[in-house]
Amino acid sequence: MEQGSKAALGWAARDASGHLSPYSFSRVQRDGDVTIKVLFCGICHTDLHIIKNEWGNAMYPVVPGHEVVGVVTDVGAGVTKFKAGDTVGVGYFVDSCRACESCRAGHENYCPDVVLASNGVGRDGAATQGGFSDVVVVDEDYVVAVPAALPPAGAAPLLCAGVTVYSPMVQYGLNAPGKRLGVVGLGGLGHMAVKFAKAFGMAVTVVSSSPGKRDEAIQRLGADEFLVSSDPEQMKAAAGTMDGIIDTVSAWHPLAALLELLKPMGQMVLVGVPSKPLELPAFAICPSGKRVAGNGVGCVADCQAMLDFAGEHGITANVEVVSMDYVNTAMERLERNDVRYRFVVDVAGSLGTAA
Amino acid sequence: MEQGSKAALGWAARDASGHLSPYSFSRVQRDGDVTIKVLFCGICHTDLHIIKNEWGNAMYPVVPGHEVVGVVTDVGAGVTKFKAGDTVGVGYFVDSCRACESCRAGHENYCPDVVLASNGVGRDGAATQGGFSDVVVVDEDYVVAVPAALPPAGAAPLLCAGVTVYSPMVQYGLNAPGKRLGVVGLGGLGHMAVKFAKAFGMAVTVVSSSPGKRDEAIQRLGADEFLVSSDPEQMKAAAGTMDGIIDTVSAWHPLAALLELLKPMGQMVLVGVPSKPLELPAFAICPSGKRVAGNGVGCVADCQAMLDFAGEHGITANVEVVSMDYVNTAMERLERNDVRYRFVVDVAGSLGTAA
Repeated sequence: MEQGSKAALGWAARDASGHLSPYSFSRVQRDGDVTIKVLFCGICHTDLHIIKNEWGNAMYPVVPGHEVVGVVTDVGAGVTKFKAGDTVGVGYFVDSCRACESCRAGHENYCPDVVLASNGVGRDGAATQGGFSDVVVVDEDYVVAVPAALPPAGAAPLLCAGVTVYSPMVQYGLNAPGKRLGVVGLGGLGHMAVKFAKAFGMAVTVVSSSPGKRDEAIQRLGADEFLVSSDPEQMKAAAGTMDGIIDTVSAWHPLAALLELLKPMGQMVLVGVPSKPLELPAFAICPSGKRVAGNGVGCVADCQAMLDFAGEHGITANVEVVSMDYVNTAMERLERNDVRYRFVVDVAGSLGTAA
Repeated sequence: MEQGSKAALGWAARDASGHLSPYSFSRVQRDGDVTIKVLFCGICHTDLHIIKNEWGNAMYPVVPGHEVVGVVTDVGAGVTKFKAGDTVGVGYFVDSCRACESCRAGHENYCPDVVLASNGVGRDGAATQGGFSDVVVVDEDYVVAVPAALPPAGAAPLLCAGVTVYSPMVQYGLNAPGKRLGVVGLGGLGHMAVKFAKAFGMAVTVVSSSPGKRDEAIQRLGADEFLVSSDPEQMKAAAGTMDGIIDTVSAWHPLAALLELLKPMGQMVLVGVPSKPLELPAFAICPSGKRVAGNGVGCVADCQAMLDFAGEHGITANVEVVSMDYVNTAMERLERNDVRYRFVVDVAGSLGTAA
């Protein structure tokens, strides 16, 4: 083994079937790196896209997983932020160039050479392997501290789903008491947006194509209003009432009716990524100065701020914890949106027995 | 005549032919109003849409015109900002509710009850008549001062075309030396955007479907670079270089290739309004945090700031001054984009003889 090399056991996909099975490999701890025993790892829809090679870029074998909460077991030379025993998190990316305009501005999530936690290409040229494994090794600058107040299973999805909605809410001022936020789609991302918005003191309207989610949205998650997007009367009555919208829907859907919900100069943020282009009528945004932004996760600083905020307000994801030998079933269920709202793999508690 | 009533002579369209001919009517000067002798009035594409009832909302007879520069001849009781003899301007709107969230925030251009200068509905319930007339009467709060340094004919288009590009440039920070701005489309709006951007100290790239505009863009207007939007090689070479884009094209056009030109987190602003919805691929904005905003003219304060800035930097529109009896021909030429870059009617110098 290379110096600093650590044996790792994960579950990997070997081909576009996406079927996951045990996989032995190694990780290397270099100067500045933190070695983390993985406790829990969330399952994100992106994992599904990657292991099935739906984006055409899978580098098999692929160990998925980028919503990691774990405990530090070792640190490399020069590490100052973390020590053995710390509970930490790792999210969607584990490195970036540190030199480009985005990196220098603290928006390393938008670095053109960002290194994804899974199926990425590390600075050593090797493919990265994700959190469906007993151990991960990550540069300390891309590791965040998980507040002790947060149960680690429920915290895991914060590392991707959480920061993906939290970051644009803060960036676009959609975190102010008294403002009204629309949350379109009530899934892994949407339910986090509702929780953060309520903690910010905002009024929240959930917009969904599923009338059956009303009780869930209002009674369980605390949303103030619920709109069925296919009901023109409901949508019309709510026109011009929202300061912002977080649109989490990853299937194609019309934007015009959603843009109508915004006040003048209102901000829509897309965090779902439909493959077919969306329709943007200029008439829906120009006379009213409305805005549509794309967002991809969040920078490390936003991720830490989000976790700190979540710790203060007791915010976690609603999760279904599963064992590693259930992940193939979980992926099938995720594909048909049969989860409220996030699967989390109990890696430390089930990997050894499952493998 | 009603008290304060003033006889007015304008040129109006009577039906969807859009043909303009002399029209006698009256204006009323109330408390707080400024009466303005119109010197020059620009012709905007919106005028063409309205007189031909292309938006289905024409209230004939319609006197078009919302790019007015004139001289104050009288003021109503309570007017404090202007006095007889002042050179002033009037733009796209002449009143707003002053009570809504947009008005209170100083963004009265986005007031849902904004009163347009022409073909609008005034607070007295009457249709508004625009600047193709010898006199206009406007509340002082919606009148701006035109710096003495600016020739009035070249200044007239600043009142709509100018502020429509200046306002979002300032709003979105696209006014900083060293930043690079893309200007898509080199017409009435686009050529103003180039001039303002250069005065802000920015690098400017004009993006056009017309290769023949290269010399005009670079040699006459001072742009730094020119891209032919239909040339994939040129476009690819410029990918990721722009901090912002002002897209002035009012015909349908693909956005994806333009969004590629932006740096991560770059800002596109749409100021042209194609009737068919544009295509917005989420992949083009989400992983890179890019933004697309609509913009409609600018608030009164922005308009004044724009004029002051134009005065300091000697910025005017490139205009073709025409007499009132040429306006029907000018409208035909405008319809086929046969003007560089703005027609301006010499109202004071030609209305009497033309009528």
